[in-house]
Amino acid sequence: MSKVTVFGAGAWGSTMAQVLSDAGNEVLLWGRSESVISEISTAHTNVKYLGSHILPDDIIATTSLDDAFAFSQMYVLAIPAQEIRATLEDWKARFPSDCTIVSTLKGIEIATQMRMTEVIEDVLGAHKIAIITGPNLADELVLRQPAGAVAAATSQVLADQIRELFRTPYYRVYTSTDVMGCELAGAIKSVIALAVGLSIGMGFGENTQAMLITRGLNEVARLCAAHGSDPLSAAGLAGMGDLVASCGSPLSRNRTFGEVIGRTGSMSAARAQMVKTVEGVASSSAVLEIAHRVGIEVPVIEAVADIVSEKLTPEAALQRLMEITTKAENFIR
Amino acid sequence: MSKVTVFGAGAWGSTMAQVLSDAGNEVLLWGRSESVISEISTAHTNVKYLGSHILPDDIIATTSLDDAFAFSQMYVLAIPAQEIRATLEDWKARFPSDCTIVSTLKGIEIATQMRMTEVIEDVLGAHKIAIITGPNLADELVLRQPAGAVAAATSQVLADQIRELFRTPYYRVYTSTDVMGCELAGAIKSVIALAVGLSIGMGFGENTQAMLITRGLNEVARLCAAHGSDPLSAAGLAGMGDLVASCGSPLSRNRTFGEVIGRTGSMSAARAQMVKTVEGVASSSAVLEIAHRVGIEVPVIEAVADIVSEKLTPEAALQRLMEITTKAENFIR
Repeated sequence: MSKVTVFGAGAWGSTMAQVLSDAGNEVLLWGRSESVISEISTAHTNVKYLGSHILPDDIIATTSLDDAFAFSQMYVLAIPAQEIRATLEDWKARFPSDCTIVSTLKGIEIATQMRMTEVIEDVLGAHKIAIITGPNLADELVLRQPAGAVAAATSQVLADQIRELFRTPYYRVYTSTDVMGCELAGAIKSVIALAVGLSIGMGFGENTQAMLITRGLNEVARLCAAHGSDPLSAAGLAGMGDLVASCGSPLSRNRTFGEVIGRTGSMSAARAQMVKTVEGVASSSAVLEIAHRVGIEVPVIEAVADIVSEKLTPEAALQRLMEITTKAENFIR
Repeated sequence: MSKVTVFGAGAWGSTMAQVLSDAGNEVLLWGRSESVISEISTAHTNVKYLGSHILPDDIIATTSLDDAFAFSQMYVLAIPAQEIRATLEDWKARFPSDCTIVSTLKGIEIATQMRMTEVIEDVLGAHKIAIITGPNLADELVLRQPAGAVAAATSQVLADQIRELFRTPYYRVYTSTDVMGCELAGAIKSVIALAVGLSIGMGFGENTQAMLITRGLNEVARLCAAHGSDPLSAAGLAGMGDLVASCGSPLSRNRTFGEVIGRTGSMSAARAQMVKTVEGVASSSAVLEIAHRVGIEVPVIEAVADIVSEKLTPEAALQRLMEITTKAENFIR
């Protein structure tokens, strides 16, 4: 039994805290909001994010950073991707040098095109850093529905340790030493999910979606390979798995946003319907730049980038995509 | 412009004939049913299989095998998988030695555990044999919705030729020289789609489906590798693509059959609701045997085989699946 601190008491942080508690750990959940934290402590609910769901009553909840950092040296981050740098800058002095940091965040920092673990290292310096990722929609995982995930760290020993920390009878955790590939796949999936939404909005069915998913993941694999990471991470739970779950969920913001553009042909109509950040919109041009930096072609990702920057209509983008010469279907080429 | 004969005037054969006509070929469509063929010839419809859809009026339709074999030396087979051996035995003497045969069939011959091109060679001897496969639901492809496919032949020259034969602005055809991998992936996908249906019937959501799809394809990849074919075919349009389309379609017989078993826990309830052959039921034990022959573990496929043979309840099979020790997430291990 380990002690673990989870930072972030939204739907995702609360769900991770429950998984870790179910896995037999002592868990402290830190959150900013006095009302959310006091509700978790007393009623064991988090109505704002998880409705009437009852969390394990042995989860300790606090708004005190002193208590959170003192509780353990195993820190699980469940904070929004675009806020992570500023948050870590604030907390920098609190991290002990031999602590372990687990990122559960998916995304690219737009301003720098850095992956989440790169941002963490950039701010905090070298630490034991791991990630956990995969097809894990919070609203299903919190109901303890069977799910799979990948614990990745450059050291196999650390990856194994994170697997043991998280695994429960309903949460199958595999390991990987390809942190970069798993993070790239997890970030790019939001762009591909947006492309799938576009095709649904344009009135197309399963064939078109399946083509975009498969060829989109082929682009992820080639992008991973060009960066020296394992192209097969794209075919695993962090890539294919996560993308399939996102595309299947009508709750996915990326898919929904794409559907509105596809149906109306209009970015402003889509923006008007969506108040929250849509990761696939924000990161499509960053991902395109990451790809162009290493000189590889990513036609599906480029189509999304050109549509969200209003350079091309969805129809024109699809036509361009269909006109590209097909060659051998190498997963890496 | 080439001359092509398509054998089989059901939904799939008629759709393939339209694609080939749209691609600029002269097409003859052969079918057994006088009424279907005469309707295609006169009204250019195939109401029984394609509703009110109008087929290109330059498709020639016939019930005459003499005319069909004389029309071209490029034969596209769109006949049900379990009927192919008996049909080819009947027609054996009609195939010229230098004809080209394109299989569009997905499945394993249950009695022999042979792939479709193996059956073709077994009956007809060595020929130029290719396949075309991928996420191609007939009802969407016939509407000319954008789709991708793989033309596979052991010779790259033949694969390229088949790609040219089929490609149209809405049908992107890639090539592969891994016939075995593409056929295995296309056949096994029905078993995995049944597993996905089971999980939906049991009340689980996207996380569970995504885990079964990803780990199921991992099994396909390892099975391909153990047979000396390319494990990456599982990650391409023939594998991942086709599986995603099947799992997304509420019309998929495999998914629907699995849903009924998952919901009722009863094979007889599922059998009562389904009059047509369910490929995933028929082939799960054949696929399991193919896997065991080369000594590899395929827990998702084995779960389906044990459920459809009523050795295990869906609950017990899922529990067994979740208890298996997780290791490194190698796509091939």
